[in-house]
Amino acid sequence: MGQKPRNALYAQSGGPTAVINASAAGLILAARASPGRIGRVYAARDGIIGALTEDLFDTQRESTRSIERLAHQPGAAFGTCRFKLKGIEESRAHYERLIEVFRAHHIGFFFYNGGNDSQDTAWKVSQIAARTGYPLTCIGIPKTVDNDLPHTDCCPGFGSAAKYLATSIREAAQDVASMARTSTKVFVMEVMGRNAGWLAASTGLAAEVPGQAPHIILFPEIAFDSAAFLRRVRETVEKTGSCVVAASEGLRDGDGKLLGEAGAKDAFGHPQLGGIAPQLAASVLSELGMKVHWAVPDYLQRSARHLASRVDLEQAFRLGQAAVRLALSGENAVMPTIVRVSDWPYKWKIGSVPLAQVANRERRLPRSYISRDGWHISEACRRYLRPLIQGEAPPPFVNGLPALNALKKVAVPKRLETGFKP
Amino acid sequence: MGQKPRNALYAQSGGPTAVINASAAGLILAARASPGRIGRVYAARDGIIGALTEDLFDTQRESTRSIERLAHQPGAAFGTCRFKLKGIEESRAHYERLIEVFRAHHIGFFFYNGGNDSQDTAWKVSQIAARTGYPLTCIGIPKTVDNDLPHTDCCPGFGSAAKYLATSIREAAQDVASMARTSTKVFVMEVMGRNAGWLAASTGLAAEVPGQAPHIILFPEIAFDSAAFLRRVRETVEKTGSCVVAASEGLRDGDGKLLGEAGAKDAFGHPQLGGIAPQLAASVLSELGMKVHWAVPDYLQRSARHLASRVDLEQAFRLGQAAVRLALSGENAVMPTIVRVSDWPYKWKIGSVPLAQVANRERRLPRSYISRDGWHISEACRRYLRPLIQGEAPPPFVNGLPALNALKKVAVPKRLETGFKP
Repeated sequence: MGQKPRNALYAQSGGPTAVINASAAGLILAARASPGRIGRVYAARDGIIGALTEDLFDTQRESTRSIERLAHQPGAAFGTCRFKLKGIEESRAHYERLIEVFRAHHIGFFFYNGGNDSQDTAWKVSQIAARTGYPLTCIGIPKTVDNDLPHTDCCPGFGSAAKYLATSIREAAQDVASMARTSTKVFVMEVMGRNAGWLAASTGLAAEVPGQAPHIILFPEIAFDSAAFLRRVRETVEKTGSCVVAASEGLRDGDGKLLGEAGAKDAFGHPQLGGIAPQLAASVLSELGMKVHWAVPDYLQRSARHLASRVDLEQAFRLGQAAVRLALSGENAVMPTIVRVSDWPYKWKIGSVPLAQVANRERRLPRSYISRDGWHISEACRRYLRPLIQGEAPPPFVNGLPALNALKKVAVPKRLETGFKP
Repeated sequence: MGQKPRNALYAQSGGPTAVINASAAGLILAARASPGRIGRVYAARDGIIGALTEDLFDTQRESTRSIERLAHQPGAAFGTCRFKLKGIEESRAHYERLIEVFRAHHIGFFFYNGGNDSQDTAWKVSQIAARTGYPLTCIGIPKTVDNDLPHTDCCPGFGSAAKYLATSIREAAQDVASMARTSTKVFVMEVMGRNAGWLAASTGLAAEVPGQAPHIILFPEIAFDSAAFLRRVRETVEKTGSCVVAASEGLRDGDGKLLGEAGAKDAFGHPQLGGIAPQLAASVLSELGMKVHWAVPDYLQRSARHLASRVDLEQAFRLGQAAVRLALSGENAVMPTIVRVSDWPYKWKIGSVPLAQVANRERRLPRSYISRDGWHISEACRRYLRPLIQGEAPPPFVNGLPALNALKKVAVPKRLETGFKP
């Protein structure tokens, strides 16, 4: 009797994206295609927490059709969490518990689908496994709407959020322009990206020729100068009749202080939550006396599966497949990446990078991707971004709405006597 | 030589919708199909203001293809305005000026595409024309995301905004639910509808069975009770792990005071603009101590042509056509309407109603459309709303984004010696 193939554990981590489940689908389907080499694929409930508490789902109990449908569903289908394991010494109990759970469930492959922190965790798990002599293959799978992982052309999730934001600001701008004469003249849309301006930059794709909206992009990389901003808003309205602004939630003043944490209070005296857009709007109204509206899409931008980029969706799926391929080819402690071959037509292939090189490193928007005057994106940025939003891939609609997926999520029976409080 | 057919003037009014230009397309194409009976179709620049200042576009100069493409474009393609003509005596100069412009341009048909106020204006224009003996056919065309016009099953623009909101809250809810264990537990999305809860109600379609998001809908028709709201949020989180709330911008307290005008100040001491959602979020955080996020889609919800309802788009187009048909059949001072024939499958036909019966009347959400406990929609509401969001009709995408339309917008030479200050 041959050796029983070792099982795999897949876990999602951090903020969901519109396409993270496409990576799950790619991975699970690829694993099913190698039944002699990978046993069952388990998915951790709520990310690494489920791995620690031994709350696992058996994806083998889902039909192939259900797994394929995963690629249509936003959110993190198996649950995710914000839970950062610290250094190996500091969080030793956690790492040891993980190995204990892996051992109990005959897990030989650990796939961790997340951003910076998660790649760091995957790397540490691989180290502890090596030290303790537990045979484990650890593969990271990139994911983040923030697009801030190094060594990959882009991160799954980003292209879809970018497409959503560029589409939304283009549509809203047509609305604003068409009634600016007697109504709203300034429109401010706030976008995610606390530390890096990738999502702010993506709105720039909506402006194909100078003068088109957005007219002003406020990046976290450029210190916010209120007077210069208001001057530019006024000039834009005088020139084009209206002014559409994309503002990063990570906007900072000259001292590096986040504008969103400026200590605003609402009517109840509660601290105002988030809301760069309403702040900017209020200053436009009071300083320029112009009618202004603002929007904060918040989670809508990272869950808008209905407007996913086909390129992004395909990359997410293929990175999931690639994770399995890397694992089966004997690689360990690596993350599959997107390697750009050409800009337009966009050609890309799958590469890989050691987790050690990804862990906890952040890729900021280069200054060369921002126009010289600091208010818009550069041509280089446009060349980089444009391919990532190409193609539409709407999910099936049922009764007018995107279909809800219904995984069975069958729990794997627990084998350990002891629980664990993460 | 026969009499030269009289020209038509088309004007858009009030807030744009995702499909108002489909009505324009239907109307212009129908007029072109009756060249012997309607001459040229002019479009007023920026709505009624353009009619007053004699700023007209000649739609005859646009290709058929360009007019067909109009149906893909959000915003108001010819410009719109918020400008209400008052009573005939009060605004006599304005009404007389309109007749003067009509006379100068041989206009025999006036088509006014808007909401309550606009139907009122169209009605008054028809009265003044009759009194002064100027031969004019006035037809209103319904339009409003607020869905508050009486005597029509629904209003073009509403179905698309409804589809956008129900889709968005369903997508965001999947995001929230998937990481609620360690992150955001409560999500509040603010929707338009200052006086009527139709758009708030539309989010309810995302919940097909009890327990699905949205869990709580806050209607302008139900006085807001903060304590009851917070209690319900807590109970929902305890039961389902997260709580998704749709809140109308028109939310009022027990005294009928708008919550959005509660006098909040931002960091600069400016009055806070709009923002029911951040207010509710702040109270959830401070009273329940739960992590909360909020979204305000604002104009995105009424310009999201990319997610238009096919039913809505078709109704908008056919109401534009119907306006021409009514005019040519000798009707005057009427508005074409949607008449529901059956709920499911949804069957509808075009009817009409005298403008006098529409003008300045508002249709509120009936109490029977709100669940008995006041927190959600009723089955009757579901039966009413569901047909209106059916079918997808995405615009052409070019380079990953909805194509921008480019009308030539050729100005009609002015014929009057005098200008007019509206």
